[in-house]
Amino acid sequence: MKLKGFQKLTFIDQALLTWFSALQIGKPNVVELPLKEALGRILAEDLIAHEALPRFDKSAMDGYAVKSADLIGASKSKPVVLQLIQSDHVNSKEAKQVWTGNPIPKNADLVVMLEDTRTCGRQLEVWCQLSPWSNISKIGEDIKKGDFLVKAGTRLNPYHLGLAAALGHNNLKVAHKPKIAIIATGNEIVEVSSERESNQIYDSNKTMISAMCHELGTETTDFGIAKDNTDEIAEKIKNALKTSDVVITTGGTSVGGLDLVPEVVNKLGKPGVIVHGVALRPAMPTGVAMLEGKPVLILSGNPVAAVIGFEVFGRPLICKLLGMPQTEHRPMVKAVLMRRITSVLGRKTYVRVRVTLKNGDLFAEPISAKGSGSISTMTQSNGYLIVPENREGISESETVFVQMFGLLEVANDV
Amino acid sequence: MKLKGFQKLTFIDQALLTWFSALQIGKPNVVELPLKEALGRILAEDLIAHEALPRFDKSAMDGYAVKSADLIGASKSKPVVLQLIQSDHVNSKEAKQVWTGNPIPKNADLVVMLEDTRTCGRQLEVWCQLSPWSNISKIGEDIKKGDFLVKAGTRLNPYHLGLAAALGHNNLKVAHKPKIAIIATGNEIVEVSSERESNQIYDSNKTMISAMCHELGTETTDFGIAKDNTDEIAEKIKNALKTSDVVITTGGTSVGGLDLVPEVVNKLGKPGVIVHGVALRPAMPTGVAMLEGKPVLILSGNPVAAVIGFEVFGRPLICKLLGMPQTEHRPMVKAVLMRRITSVLGRKTYVRVRVTLKNGDLFAEPISAKGSGSISTMTQSNGYLIVPENREGISESETVFVQMFGLLEVANDV
Repeated sequence: MKLKGFQKLTFIDQALLTWFSALQIGKPNVVELPLKEALGRILAEDLIAHEALPRFDKSAMDGYAVKSADLIGASKSKPVVLQLIQSDHVNSKEAKQVWTGNPIPKNADLVVMLEDTRTCGRQLEVWCQLSPWSNISKIGEDIKKGDFLVKAGTRLNPYHLGLAAALGHNNLKVAHKPKIAIIATGNEIVEVSSERESNQIYDSNKTMISAMCHELGTETTDFGIAKDNTDEIAEKIKNALKTSDVVITTGGTSVGGLDLVPEVVNKLGKPGVIVHGVALRPAMPTGVAMLEGKPVLILSGNPVAAVIGFEVFGRPLICKLLGMPQTEHRPMVKAVLMRRITSVLGRKTYVRVRVTLKNGDLFAEPISAKGSGSISTMTQSNGYLIVPENREGISESETVFVQMFGLLEVANDV
Repeated sequence: MKLKGFQKLTFIDQALLTWFSALQIGKPNVVELPLKEALGRILAEDLIAHEALPRFDKSAMDGYAVKSADLIGASKSKPVVLQLIQSDHVNSKEAKQVWTGNPIPKNADLVVMLEDTRTCGRQLEVWCQLSPWSNISKIGEDIKKGDFLVKAGTRLNPYHLGLAAALGHNNLKVAHKPKIAIIATGNEIVEVSSERESNQIYDSNKTMISAMCHELGTETTDFGIAKDNTDEIAEKIKNALKTSDVVITTGGTSVGGLDLVPEVVNKLGKPGVIVHGVALRPAMPTGVAMLEGKPVLILSGNPVAAVIGFEVFGRPLICKLLGMPQTEHRPMVKAVLMRRITSVLGRKTYVRVRVTLKNGDLFAEPISAKGSGSISTMTQSNGYLIVPENREGISESETVFVQMFGLLEVANDV
């Protein structure tokens, strides 16, 4: 293979390592948010229990709090009879009604379930004997003071928020949203909202890359479309650097062809382009750069290559900026490959597949298309089968791991 | 088992069927949104291609558009020499430079890649022979006019939005967000933001249920906490029904014990409670109801039971309200069960498990806790192993399906 533009292609892991070494990303800025606004945000400080849960011995059942000694020998045929009381202090031969979650009254040491009892006026018949502390959630049983609960860098789900609420946290400290500038380039593309000539196409890259950024939890600014013209591209990148933490471009980068964006980036400052041309299919013309200490990601203009370039370089970058300890992986499933796929030795290949659940088994069907350019290969598939550099294709019927970006297709319910 | 409150427990499928039959949910209201606001929303109308993609024959490579007849016999040792032109019309012995995505000039019928050529002033040497239409994406190759692209009821991901953009859709019609009212009940609970007595606990249920609703794409209104008092509960439910599409309560429902919420719901109107007491562990005291034609979901006060009651009844309800053809399932993985679990015949059991990827295999470890009440069983786990009604436990080492609500733990990378 002859490549005019790329003397050599850089392996993905190496490209990421070199880029991140140059960037030296520190801890994210922190913002404190009310719980109800913290869903999906990245926790910035470890959550540690400052008190125990439950905070007091509480009933795990609806029933009656009693003293265990009083129930010795109780049975259906020989019930024990206790006095029902209202006080928060249970003496011998007394019982107090409690609902699940209620504090255990003083001196009581077990809860007998409603269904093992019968009331009769102010008296309670109990039909069973129980060991002390039955049906009681003891103080600290769920969580002890000082327990390590949620690590910094975790994306907060509803249950993390619930745990924080139970501990009395009204706010949580989360990572600030990085600001991502997105610039499209290309003479042939126009904004979706505008009029179009017969030889022009609508830009879909900004829409997709923005949405992928939003899914990860960043803000984005749309810097519009630059013509294939170094001045126009330079102007937009300079403006973007003023207000944003990251600049992402699409188009104007290729294998040995139109390399306007890398050229402009190199003119704008040091170190400029760090890696250009990666051992990735599709998305070989992807470039990673740094200007004014900020990351610049140069994506292909081909929509699918842009998406996969972002998947491979943009996602890890954003996860790092958000303070996550590692790149948030997509859900992974093991599936049987339905059709042989080809790949080139020495290239990491992202094959779009549709994973279907059928009679309790998972199958992955490659979604083929002549070119890599069709967005419909993304909307028809639900996952990536990533073929590593040391494999040359994968055979039919082999079991593979798929990283899911969409929902499993369910042919028959399990 | 003796149950005072429940004469019988209703199976989940039956409970859902009865509830949904009563509710007769129609198509959702529709709102038209700009693409950038449509991420994660539910498409309300099928997306059908009103034009072909590509819209014109375009180059799939950076290179030169030529006439295939001109290349016959070309080779490295015997290159063909063509004239470079600027015009959009290629005649015999002419070549025009094209970048990936550019329209093919008239009369040209193939693109020769840059790396198979050399320029020399106004002349181009071509070193290879190619069949007609090589490296050209033909009009309609990706998408034909009239192609069915995205079904109504689909949750829009970045690629759906990209496809819509490529077709020139600036807006999409999506389902209106249902408005969910959330009411907590219980003498022992207080708002996270407020002062607390020694026998009180912070409410975590409203936080969790709201967040689960937000994840699905609804609005929520927090109606606060009602004391265990029929008037107070009735007042809040009546107010909630005025402004909301759905009312969800937590607490005040149990197995044979404090049944204030079902009692109030039945007093407020017809049909009131439709099912109360379900064959589900945890979350047996869950109730489903209808008031003023609107769904009412009665959840347990126990945080984990509330979450699982919502998972089993709230999620399907909201998916239906959003116009989804079926309940959106969570990502599913197959894993090896690390420890035997017990369950009761005749109850659907939701076991919280932590799924770990280790040396290329997936393992599911049950997260046990004495009671079902601890939210930490949710934050320590990442999926549900659902044991069906006809199983009595599952053995160690059995392969099981897990519905993931969190990220896979990765012990070693694949």
